[in-house]
Amino acid sequence: MLQQAAIALDVRLRVLAASPDESAAQVIPNVSVGNPGDASVLGSFAAGCDVLTFDHEQVPNAHLRALEAQGIPIRPGPGALLYAQDKAAMRERLGAAGLPVPRWRRVKAVDDITEFAGDAGWPVILKATHGGYDGRGVWSVTDRDAAAVVADECAQRGVHLIAEERVVFTRELAALVARSPHGQAVAYPVVETVQRDGICHELVAPAPGLGDGPATAAQAVALRVAELLGVTGVMAVELFDTPSGVVVNELAMRPHNSGHWTIDGAVTSQFEQHLRAVLDLPLGSPAPLAPWTVTVNVLGGEHPDLHQGLLHCMARDPGLHVHLYGKQVRPGRKVGHVTVLGSELAELRARARHAADFLRGPSDEG
Amino acid sequence: MLQQAAIALDVRLRVLAASPDESAAQVIPNVSVGNPGDASVLGSFAAGCDVLTFDHEQVPNAHLRALEAQGIPIRPGPGALLYAQDKAAMRERLGAAGLPVPRWRRVKAVDDITEFAGDAGWPVILKATHGGYDGRGVWSVTDRDAAAVVADECAQRGVHLIAEERVVFTRELAALVARSPHGQAVAYPVVETVQRDGICHELVAPAPGLGDGPATAAQAVALRVAELLGVTGVMAVELFDTPSGVVVNELAMRPHNSGHWTIDGAVTSQFEQHLRAVLDLPLGSPAPLAPWTVTVNVLGGEHPDLHQGLLHCMARDPGLHVHLYGKQVRPGRKVGHVTVLGSELAELRARARHAADFLRGPSDEG
Repeated sequence: MLQQAAIALDVRLRVLAASPDESAAQVIPNVSVGNPGDASVLGSFAAGCDVLTFDHEQVPNAHLRALEAQGIPIRPGPGALLYAQDKAAMRERLGAAGLPVPRWRRVKAVDDITEFAGDAGWPVILKATHGGYDGRGVWSVTDRDAAAVVADECAQRGVHLIAEERVVFTRELAALVARSPHGQAVAYPVVETVQRDGICHELVAPAPGLGDGPATAAQAVALRVAELLGVTGVMAVELFDTPSGVVVNELAMRPHNSGHWTIDGAVTSQFEQHLRAVLDLPLGSPAPLAPWTVTVNVLGGEHPDLHQGLLHCMARDPGLHVHLYGKQVRPGRKVGHVTVLGSELAELRARARHAADFLRGPSDEG
Repeated sequence: MLQQAAIALDVRLRVLAASPDESAAQVIPNVSVGNPGDASVLGSFAAGCDVLTFDHEQVPNAHLRALEAQGIPIRPGPGALLYAQDKAAMRERLGAAGLPVPRWRRVKAVDDITEFAGDAGWPVILKATHGGYDGRGVWSVTDRDAAAVVADECAQRGVHLIAEERVVFTRELAALVARSPHGQAVAYPVVETVQRDGICHELVAPAPGLGDGPATAAQAVALRVAELLGVTGVMAVELFDTPSGVVVNELAMRPHNSGHWTIDGAVTSQFEQHLRAVLDLPLGSPAPLAPWTVTVNVLGGEHPDLHQGLLHCMARDPGLHVHLYGKQVRPGRKVGHVTVLGSELAELRARARHAADFLRGPSDEG
C-alpha cells in the first residue's frame, strides 16, 4: 500500500523482502530477496537507499544502530524503534515520563508472577517482550499453575516476559500520529478498534461517542509519545479506554492496520503520510472525508481465492472500497480489508461486515 | 496510475512499454520493452495476458484484430477502438446515428477545403484523421493559402485530413463513462475542461452552472456512444458546450486526463473503474466526494526537478493531492497534476493553480 502512495509522489521504493511472495515484492519493481535479520544483507541493501524505513518491527535493533553509525538515514531511527520492539523498554520509558501505562513488571520465574498477582490480582497478562503480534506472544493466566506453564516454556525458549495487570476497559482505541524529522506532527481522528482473539476485526473513525475532551487527550498522549521517543514516520498507539482515561497498550512505528481507514477515508492516507514524514516533507491533512468511516478486515477463511467474492460484493455495494493484499490465504490471517464511508454508522457497519464476511467465503463451521 | 488501482484489487499488470523510461514501466514489476506497433512483439506479449487494454491509442488496429481473431480478449476491442483512432470514422459513425458532431468532410486537395469553407465558412479546422493529441495534428486555417500549406504538407507525409467547421462554443466539457462487457455502464459527473493551445490545463467537477438537464443530456450522449460502439472500459467524450446543446469533439477509450479528478474526488477512480470494466467486474460508484473538485495539470517548464516544489506546495496546502508521473520534464508536457476538493470553488481553483504553477517552477518568460 506504500507503493500506491509512492507512485503518486514519484518516489521510487526498493524493498528488502524475506521472500518473493511478500505483498510488497509483488508490486514494487526493485526487490532484493534476503533476510533482513542478516546484518550483511541489510547493509548492502541499505547502501543503495536514501532513507530506510520499515513495514514490520523484526529488524534487529543492533544492526540498525550499526547502519545509523555509518550515516544511513533510518526513519524511525533505532533509538525510537526500540520502544516498538521491546515492550518492557516501552513501558519503562513511558511510565517514567508519566504517561499512562498499565501496572507491569519484568518476570522470570513463576514466583515473580505470583508476587505481581499479589498486588495486581489475577488474571495476570503475560507478554513476550519481543516479537508478538495479532495475539501471539500474549497469555492470560488465572492462577499459579497456568503461570508456571507459560513461564517454564518461555524460559526454555529464551523468551523474556513481562507481567501486566488485566486492564478493565470499556473498549480499545487507536491514536495514529505522524512526525517528521523537522518535528512537525499531525494526529488523525482517534478510532475505535474492535478486537477478537487479539486480532483487530473492525475500525470505526472517529471512535463513536468519544467526546472532544477524551479524543484530544488520546491524541495528546500519542503526540507526546512521538516527541518523547523521537519517532519519525507514522506511529499507531493502541489504547485501552477506561473510566479514568486512556492507557497505552502497544506502539507500532509504521503504517498500521488501525490506520487503514485513512486510505479511502482521510485527505492524506497513512501511507502517503509515512512517506512524507520519512522524507521530511511537510505533512498532509489528517482530516476525514466523511462523518464516519468503517473498515473491516478480511481474515483468511477456508477458501483460497478472494477474487471469487468480488463479483457479489461489488455488485451489491458500488460504494465499497476493497483492498486485497496479495497474501496467500491462511485461516485467521489478515488478507485484505474493506472500507465504506458516509453518514449512517449502523448502515456502514452492516455493509462493511457483510462484504468482509463474503470475501472470506463460506465456513464449514457455519 | 492504473497500477495504484491494480494493487488494491490484487490484479497483476504486465506492461508493454516502448521504453523502460515510460511512467508505467517505472512502477510495474512485469515490464516487456518493445514496440507495440510491431505485430510479433505485440503477439508474444499478448499471449501471456488474460485481458489486453491500453493507455494510448497508437497500437495498429489491424494487429489487434488479428489477436482478437486468435481469441485474446481485448478491451476496448479493436472494433470500438477504431473510433478513437480514426477521427473520420468516428464522425461518420456518430453522425449516422444522429449524435451531435460538427459539420465535417474528408479532404485531400486544397479545393476540397475551399469548397467546404464555401458552406461552413472560414476559419476551417483541419485535423489529421490519425495520431494527433494535445493540439498536435490540428490546424486552424483562415484562407485558401493557409489551407494549401497544410494540405500539401500532409499530402507529402501521407497524412489523411478532415475539414471541420469551427464550432462556436461557450466552453469545453468532458463526459466520462465506463462500460463493461456485460453492458453495465456508469457516468461520472460532467466536468468543465479549460484548454489552452489545445492542451487541457484545468478540470472542474462538476461543470459549474451546467443545469441538471444539460448535464444529463451530456451523460446520455456519452453513454449512447459507449453502447453504439460497444466500448469496454473507460471512455472520455470531449464535448463543445454550445447554445444549442453539446457537440462531440473527440473520444478517448482509456482513463483520460479529463478524469484525473476522480482519483481523489470520486468514490471510484477512473483507473479502478477501467480495471473493473475490462475485467468484467461490477462497476463502482462514480459519485463525487465533495461539492467541487478542481484538478490542474502540471505542465513541464524549464526546471527538470518537480520534487523541488513539493516542500512549498505541501507546506502551504496540507489538503493538496499531488500526482507526479515520473516523466522527464519537457516544456508543455503534462508531467503531473494536483487536485483539491471542497465547497468553495474560487478558493479551490486558486489553490490548485498556485500549486501547479509552483511545481512547474519559475519561467524566464516571467
